[in-house]
Amino acid sequence: MSRAIAGPEIEKLIQLLARLPGLGPRSARRAALYLIKRKDQLLVPLAGALQLAAERILVCSACGNIDTADPCAICTDPRRDASVICVVEDVADLWALERANAINARYHVLGGVLSPLDGTGPDDLNLAGLIERARAEDVREVLLAVNATVEGQTTAHYITDLLAGAGVSVSRLAHGVPVGGELDYLDDGTLAAAVKSRTPF
Amino acid sequence: MSRAIAGPEIEKLIQLLARLPGLGPRSARRAALYLIKRKDQLLVPLAGALQLAAERILVCSACGNIDTADPCAICTDPRRDASVICVVEDVADLWALERANAINARYHVLGGVLSPLDGTGPDDLNLAGLIERARAEDVREVLLAVNATVEGQTTAHYITDLLAGAGVSVSRLAHGVPVGGELDYLDDGTLAAAVKSRTPF
Repeated sequence: MSRAIAGPEIEKLIQLLARLPGLGPRSARRAALYLIKRKDQLLVPLAGALQLAAERILVCSACGNIDTADPCAICTDPRRDASVICVVEDVADLWALERANAINARYHVLGGVLSPLDGTGPDDLNLAGLIERARAEDVREVLLAVNATVEGQTTAHYITDLLAGAGVSVSRLAHGVPVGGELDYLDDGTLAAAVKSRTPF
Repeated sequence: MSRAIAGPEIEKLIQLLARLPGLGPRSARRAALYLIKRKDQLLVPLAGALQLAAERILVCSACGNIDTADPCAICTDPRRDASVICVVEDVADLWALERANAINARYHVLGGVLSPLDGTGPDDLNLAGLIERARAEDVREVLLAVNATVEGQTTAHYITDLLAGAGVSVSRLAHGVPVGGELDYLDDGTLAAAVKSRTPF
């Protein structure tokens, strides 16, 4: 029989922290102690921030982004190009594109990719809303900014078929050498794609 | 100028999560999204657990352990051997000894080690309480279970000097080959210590 090491409040906190991605049981214990030692600087503010997030954060009913307003700030931003919908798998991908300042369009968050092995089918993705949005008169292009994985590409093909009658052009991200990348470290598929899509210098 | 990627509530949450040990900016973003997506299963319970920890957790005025009672459950446990005080650097070390069920004594948490480079002097450690406790009539032994680092050993020597007149025997953890350890991978100091402290087979 193992003795209770810390009180139930601390044990519960450690258990919950251990469920975060990137933290295991040992690092969760470290994080819990770190928090308890920095009660006023970190523990209380974090509790408040989580509480606020729980109360305020909504999923945008138009695009699936998360924000404190529905529709979200991107969907209601008049400076965004409303003629392009950039389709992403996850909010993290949306954030990555926004950080890179890569596109000034609106987004559509699928909430996953088709993956028969994981039991994710078309009904589990935010697809009905996408087709409806693509049929709107001012939408001209749907950019499928899904990951370059097998599941991502399968999903892209599936969406292309779905959008066949919607009167929009469907595009995808370019394949090629990452900026700063070294050819010697790249896989064959990327190199072949980069040669095939070569551009005039 | 970079555009605000998410609302201030999410940005604040990410910033606070990034301050946890083991999480950086990228993993904090991942953790924040993970929490927001699991609002009822994880976000709300974690906010509650942090709130509860902030309200309930105290530092034991006797030993420096953290618990929801002061004195802590270990200090008030009548089944503990009150004649031995096990001195540790940090609550994490106390937890490690308790998990291993290594000793049934009471503890004394120093809250650090002497480290001139980091500006940690004797006044920053919980030393006055230790001397007072060691002078109590029923205390027979002080076990210095500090880390086998330079700072830990310096602190152990310092405490040994402090306890010179307290009428207790001072002991330290044995050095040797870790259980399951391979000699080929051990450092010279550990090997030499293991040979020097060899025991009859």
